[in-house]
Amino acid sequence: MKIAVYPGSFDPITYGHLDVLDRAIEIFDNVIITVAINAAKKPIFTTEERITLISDIVAATPSVEVDTFEGLIVDYARRKHAVALVRGLRAVSDFEFEFQMALMNRKLAPDIATVFLMPNEKFTYLNSSIVRELARHRTSVTDFVPDNVRIALEQRFGTPHRQRT
Amino acid sequence: MKIAVYPGSFDPITYGHLDVLDRAIEIFDNVIITVAINAAKKPIFTTEERITLISDIVAATPSVEVDTFEGLIVDYARRKHAVALVRGLRAVSDFEFEFQMALMNRKLAPDIATVFLMPNEKFTYLNSSIVRELARHRTSVTDFVPDNVRIALEQRFGTPHRQRT
Amino acid sequence: MKIAVYPGSFDPITYGHLDVLDRAIEIFDNVIITVAINAAKKPIFTTEERITLISDIVAATPSVEVDTFEGLIVDYARRKHAVALVRGLRAVSDFEFEFQMALMNRKLAPDIATVFLMPNEKFTYLNSSIVRELARHRTSVTDFVPDNVRIALEQRFGTPHRQRT
Amino acid sequence: MKIAVYPGSFDPITYGHLDVLDRAIEIFDNVIITVAINAAKKPIFTTEERITLISDIVAATPSVEVDTFEGLIVDYARRKHAVALVRGLRAVSDFEFEFQMALMNRKLAPDIATVFLMPNEKFTYLNSSIVRELARHRTSVTDFVPDNVRIALEQRFGTPHRQRT
Amino acid sequence: MKIAVYPGSFDPITYGHLDVLDRAIEIFDNVIITVAINAAKKPIFTTEERITLISDIVAATPSVEVDTFEGLIVDYARRKHAVALVRGLRAVSDFEFEFQMALMNRKLAPDIATVFLMPNEKFTYLNSSIVRELARHRTSVTDFVPDNVRIALEQRFGTPHRQRT
Amino acid sequence: MKIAVYPGSFDPITYGHLDVLDRAIEIFDNVIITVAINAAKKPIFTTEERITLISDIVAATPSVEVDTFEGLIVDYARRKHAVALVRGLRAVSDFEFEFQMALMNRKLAPDIATVFLMPNEKFTYLNSSIVRELARHRTSVTDFVPDNVRIALEQRFGTPHRQRT
Repeated sequence: MKIAVYPGSFDPITYGHLDVLDRAIEIFDNVIITVAINAAKKPIFTTEERITLISDIVAATPSVEVDTFEGLIVDYARRKHAVALVRGLRAVSDFEFEFQMALMNRKLAPDIATVFLMPNEKFTYLNSSIVRELARHRTSVTDFVPDNVRIALEQRFGTPHRQRT
Repeated sequence: MKIAVYPGSFDPITYGHLDVLDRAIEIFDNVIITVAINAAKKPIFTTEERITLISDIVAATPSVEVDTFEGLIVDYARRKHAVALVRGLRAVSDFEFEFQMALMNRKLAPDIATVFLMPNEKFTYLNSSIVRELARHRTSVTDFVPDNVRIALEQRFGTPHRQRT
Repeated sequence: MKIAVYPGSFDPITYGHLDVLDRAIEIFDNVIITVAINAAKKPIFTTEERITLISDIVAATPSVEVDTFEGLIVDYARRKHAVALVRGLRAVSDFEFEFQMALMNRKLAPDIATVFLMPNEKFTYLNSSIVRELARHRTSVTDFVPDNVRIALEQRFGTPHRQRT
Repeated sequence: MKIAVYPGSFDPITYGHLDVLDRAIEIFDNVIITVAINAAKKPIFTTEERITLISDIVAATPSVEVDTFEGLIVDYARRKHAVALVRGLRAVSDFEFEFQMALMNRKLAPDIATVFLMPNEKFTYLNSSIVRELARHRTSVTDFVPDNVRIALEQRFGTPHRQRT
Repeated sequence: MKIAVYPGSFDPITYGHLDVLDRAIEIFDNVIITVAINAAKKPIFTTEERITLISDIVAATPSVEVDTFEGLIVDYARRKHAVALVRGLRAVSDFEFEFQMALMNRKLAPDIATVFLMPNEKFTYLNSSIVRELARHRTSVTDFVPDNVRIALEQRFGTPHRQRT
Repeated sequence: MKIAVYPGSFDPITYGHLDVLDRAIEIFDNVIITVAINAAKKPIFTTEERITLISDIVAATPSVEVDTFEGLIVDYARRKHAVALVRGLRAVSDFEFEFQMALMNRKLAPDIATVFLMPNEKFTYLNSSIVRELARHRTSVTDFVPDNVRIALEQRFGTPHRQRT
């Protein structure tokens, strides 16, 4: 059985992440989507909240497991007997950083491949930080995140001022 | 069973391609490495010669099949019931071209993912065109291609002038 | 009155070009879309055919003029009393080439600005060469070009083999 | 009347910004240069100081208005009935970030175009952060900012130690 | 006598830096490797510790001097009568930042060239920040830094948990 | 004595090349500027004409030698006892190609460094192909090439139609 690990901050998870996850599900028998616990960053959702949001979304997909990790991702992946790390690539700026990480991870764990998948081009401009920015300005995020994430953002920042046309 | 297609010109196949192939083998149950038949280009090896060279190299790997294709790669991949196209990514210049191809292929065949894998950084500078150039100048290609490819290149262009240190 | 020139090969014109043109029309009082006459290239449509295809498409838009040019684009723009050249930017690879052209044109004609506009992200992967390639393989181009261009391509290369789903 | 909005931090405004502004003035009937109020950043000049510096510089240009904004730039632009956002593009690193912003803004406000203009290549290396760094080290900034900005920087950080040759 | 200055944070120095230094030694008669004193950053090693680590490593190389600097690097380089600044280039993301710095430095000191050298591709993914991250997670850094740096990191963060294979 | 080799097509040599050459002269004791003999390309000037044009320009600079080469540049550089290859870097698009060439050359000849130098930003947009294009359209190239090259181009393509302002 081929297992892959899909690590990230997912603060919050967006349709871009879910598009990459869908692709990974088609390729691997099992995908573990795993939230990085990073003491340095101040997320808007706690690790537990992010786990709950993601678990709700993937509840109906038996081949996906939701988890958290600390430390080096390759150590985590090895403990999970994964053959691959999954990463989304949207743009050149993603690419170089991801490339260096992937080369270092390959050096640290030659037996674990990094697999790059590409979200739909309509998610090229989408990332969690833009979603947080929109929510902070009480702008509708309906097109960018699933309903449960949208509701969680509205509870945090308030409902949108107005409808966009 | 998860099948992937790894298309290319492979004129000739290099250690960079084989490194990507090895990664693909770990991820997919079956990998079809398939040589593009392109009337416009003038290859140094015929399609048949390239098939033979690759077949020799992968002879001991039962999960790899060698084939050729014409036309759109997504049509070929669909006929083969593949879930994914495999592409190697070495550098930013690769990335943009590959990205546009992958987006177009996704548009044409939404059910087939493009999976990007990264060769070892020691193959960053390696491609078939550099290998041909070295062989033409009768410079040793031992570090860049398997023995059967090296011999085929020497039969075409002559043995290397001298040893490098 | 602010006039802009939008130069290109347009062999053939695609929805990506038309998206850039629509943006230019909102900004300038008059836009001249002008087909480069380039003896070196072998286009699939003659200059006259391309002019006809574009003219049909923009027939109902009085602020757009269709024309051809030879020689340096800045000389042409100056003769047309344009304040700007319009260029579409889709990706980093576009960017560098366009940047160098724009700097040279600025050097040659400091009074004419180059204005970069961005097509919708759904046209990121779209260019005339991919459209020609699809048409050659008799694959549907309905999503990429207007009807009159699609018909002209089918007359040249034949109707698509099959419908995509 | 075609109105454009040129947003930025302008802390401080440089000859690079003014070069982009000059280009925008040629293209649009009215340009609103607008200073982003960002509570998170610690600028060296207050919003009011930046407004004053810019207003002094453009005093003789009736088609330019100076303003401030908070929140999403597209909401501001819509309130101002602008047809376009103006952004300067100097390098590939600018490009990707700007591209993602422009795509998101296009999604949020399809009726407002982002127009990219290119400063003279002699400003390729110039940005506000480098100007602040030079001023902090009491190095002459005569070549990079107008006189009133230079004087304001010298009042803050002291006069340059020496003349460069 | 041709003198070059090689500036950096070197927190800590890695095999990537040393590879660039080796190249510089072949080209220049004298190379001054100089540690930037930057009050803003919180390094893991003090300036003195970094000087000591580097001095130990280059002790047997008479043409290398170790030093520190504050302020603009071009002012420092001029005081040292250097003809060139040395910078390592590993990837496109390095390139743009370095390019802008080099252009600004060229403007400030036209008589001092910036010389870009390329470390071995096996150091493409290597930088001080990744080394610090690995040491923090008590992962072996044997392949990335000389022995004295490794020992200093282990004294700070503890010895590695386990051997990698 | 430190010798460097500066290879290129130089068809024709421009102020951009000469700017890089000037930088190299400051760094190395001896610089060999060497014209690549490439049977595949159709240059506008013969190898002999290019040698003559360059020789005229550097006649007063005793530390520069003009030469030609065939085959691999590293073999040539080794025969000349060079410590370095000199390459100009203007933009990201240059960078990737040059990077791959430099890595391959480093592999083939570890004792010869590739040194990247940066022309003045005013030459960012300048290359031989643009100069040829301008000359073909009988546009003044005074700002881009030395007088002897300009005269040679005018003899080939005719004098400019008009003065630019």
